[in-house]
Amino acid sequence: MKFGGTSVADIRKIKNVASIINKSYKKYKLVVVLSAMAGATNDLQKLIDQIDYPSSKENDLVLTSGEQVTVGLLSMVLNKMKIKSIPLLGWQVPIITDSSYEKAKILNINKDNILKYLAEYDVVVLAGFQGINTEGKITSIGRGGSDTTAVAIASSLKADRCDIFSDVEGVYSSDPNIVINAKKIDKISYEEMLEMSSMGAKVLHTRSVELAMKNNLTLQVLSSLTNQEGTFIVNEKKLIEKEVVSGVSYSKNESKITISGIPDKPGIAAKIFRILSRNNINIDMIVQNISQDGISANLTFTVLKKDMKISKNLLEKNSEKILYKQLSINSEVAKISVIGMGMMSQSGVAEKMFQTLADQQINILAISTSEIKISVLIEEKYTNNAVNSLHSAYRLGFNN
Amino acid sequence: MKFGGTSVADIRKIKNVASIINKSYKKYKLVVVLSAMAGATNDLQKLIDQIDYPSSKENDLVLTSGEQVTVGLLSMVLNKMKIKSIPLLGWQVPIITDSSYEKAKILNINKDNILKYLAEYDVVVLAGFQGINTEGKITSIGRGGSDTTAVAIASSLKADRCDIFSDVEGVYSSDPNIVINAKKIDKISYEEMLEMSSMGAKVLHTRSVELAMKNNLTLQVLSSLTNQEGTFIVNEKKLIEKEVVSGVSYSKNESKITISGIPDKPGIAAKIFRILSRNNINIDMIVQNISQDGISANLTFTVLKKDMKISKNLLEKNSEKILYKQLSINSEVAKISVIGMGMMSQSGVAEKMFQTLADQQINILAISTSEIKISVLIEEKYTNNAVNSLHSAYRLGFNN
Repeated sequence: MKFGGTSVADIRKIKNVASIINKSYKKYKLVVVLSAMAGATNDLQKLIDQIDYPSSKENDLVLTSGEQVTVGLLSMVLNKMKIKSIPLLGWQVPIITDSSYEKAKILNINKDNILKYLAEYDVVVLAGFQGINTEGKITSIGRGGSDTTAVAIASSLKADRCDIFSDVEGVYSSDPNIVINAKKIDKISYEEMLEMSSMGAKVLHTRSVELAMKNNLTLQVLSSLTNQEGTFIVNEKKLIEKEVVSGVSYSKNESKITISGIPDKPGIAAKIFRILSRNNINIDMIVQNISQDGISANLTFTVLKKDMKISKNLLEKNSEKILYKQLSINSEVAKISVIGMGMMSQSGVAEKMFQTLADQQINILAISTSEIKISVLIEEKYTNNAVNSLHSAYRLGFNN
Repeated sequence: MKFGGTSVADIRKIKNVASIINKSYKKYKLVVVLSAMAGATNDLQKLIDQIDYPSSKENDLVLTSGEQVTVGLLSMVLNKMKIKSIPLLGWQVPIITDSSYEKAKILNINKDNILKYLAEYDVVVLAGFQGINTEGKITSIGRGGSDTTAVAIASSLKADRCDIFSDVEGVYSSDPNIVINAKKIDKISYEEMLEMSSMGAKVLHTRSVELAMKNNLTLQVLSSLTNQEGTFIVNEKKLIEKEVVSGVSYSKNESKITISGIPDKPGIAAKIFRILSRNNINIDMIVQNISQDGISANLTFTVLKKDMKISKNLLEKNSEKILYKQLSINSEVAKISVIGMGMMSQSGVAEKMFQTLADQQINILAISTSEIKISVLIEEKYTNNAVNSLHSAYRLGFNN
């Protein structure tokens, strides 16, 4: 079980976590992974920001203090309820990571130590987000990393399941803030979940889903506040009866860059993307088309909004190498995705998407497809309209 | 150097600490011991109090998270100033303690590890208050324990000096809140300092003074806000020219208990004190006198105010064993002490104390003496008057 910051935000909520544990600890041996109290890590980050000197080793040391508080408090509450528990920090397990401070990778977990404690105690309460490197320094596995800690521990112990508790009831067919009848999904495949979370469905840390997929570990995303089943994230083989499309998601994190009038010869696109990738800028959707004069081409692609400015500078600085006529950028765009396992083997999914958008007079600026996803780039102002129309068209809502 | 919670209460103050370090680090190799930010430990204690389940192991785990924040932040600031530093937690040194959670004793410090870091870095920044026991669990050495950490580290490294920075400028001849011309003392012996701090002069943790005395380590108590020398606490042999009386202190922490009409025969006092000591109640001032009938005696003694109620209950419950006539208690008392090395070999110190109080019409309820202290118990309402009169009588003020 993993509980996020909002589930351990105060003593009342920590007692609620203890009551959830109380319902299960006689049936299962439990490892409970906790985040810091909601807000605590942000407060520490604000102190760090006042110093304005990036030094990731010290960052990790400061930021990992928050879970020490919550594991101690929960363990106290459990002891009071006569549930035998032991709190453990990352270095006490130990959870060995590499030395990439602020985004460390877990290299090894001392499983035997955890099993030893599980034999002696009802519940092991573990600090998420943190580890220790081989030099004995504290590392963090990045913001939101407690999900990854939980999945790594569950995988290493070959747990029956890993339940991720937060303040949402599961994964939805679309963002409930903009689609009124968005429906909680009962079961979803790892791959679909990955597409969902990469699109900003902030239910799960992406790395944790990848890790669960690799280890074939069943995840459940559920709320610590209601007493209901959440969304199970499983191997696709376990999805017997399955809708073709599971959800519609969107992202406003990207900007569109169009380079016009580049020579239409091999290697130019590669040259452009090499310049960007060398500067750690990832490119997402790409469309290349020949311009009307038949000699030069246009190239359109998207980068993350935060990388837009530096991308523009890099392209301008290298204008002599690339030999383009014009560079235009647009940040007022949104990427809309339809996600579903096996949609490629089912005809008509893409057609329905394009037709639905056309019916709404929404122009498509770029398209990209994968095995389980079709994404289109549109003007940002049409986001709500597009997401709602697609959600209805695929009959994803609870009253369809 | 040790900096208390008020000296690291925010980033501005942490930068001030860094500037103090900046003045010294080229002259000395420095180990800097920090407390948690002022208020941080209290905030954590409030969370613990809401659970209302004393479990000292978890208490220590939660409370020791505060120093992790300050050592990380100070190290960041120092790095920014190009002062090479490394932050260390108790378990990273390690500082090995016994397993008396909440009041652990330091058993061993890995000095070689600290020396290794001192060779590589300009400054080692160390979390105070915390250690680790042989089971690998985090322990704390009690509230205010960072002083003790600093002295233990300095002793183990055979440091030239241990400077304890706080928000006071040193040790005063009396409480400046009630004696207007109380004077900062330049030098004082360990023994005098011990008497001062046991009387409530909250400049230093008592254990830290005992440890410094044992290791003959010179301490300096000074302010992190002014750029001035503080009070040096030294071996008495280093006190060449020395006033007989160094200070006048007071305590309102005690209550007086009088048991009248007890049989005047051997063993009764021992019986009474055994009952109390078995319940961990310490007795301080004791006066026994024969009552007028010549057969029975009266016994007067003081206990800490917090132990008063339980002492009364215990004595009443055991009234048949002790066979007393009457039990009376008084919490409106104050203990006034005159402290000075070698006062016993100097005639007239005690006489001057009694005469001064008599001149003020202040009645003495009990007296106790030691090598370096004379204490009297008086009615609490006379405290200010008594302290000021004595401070003048011994000419301790700065305009005497």
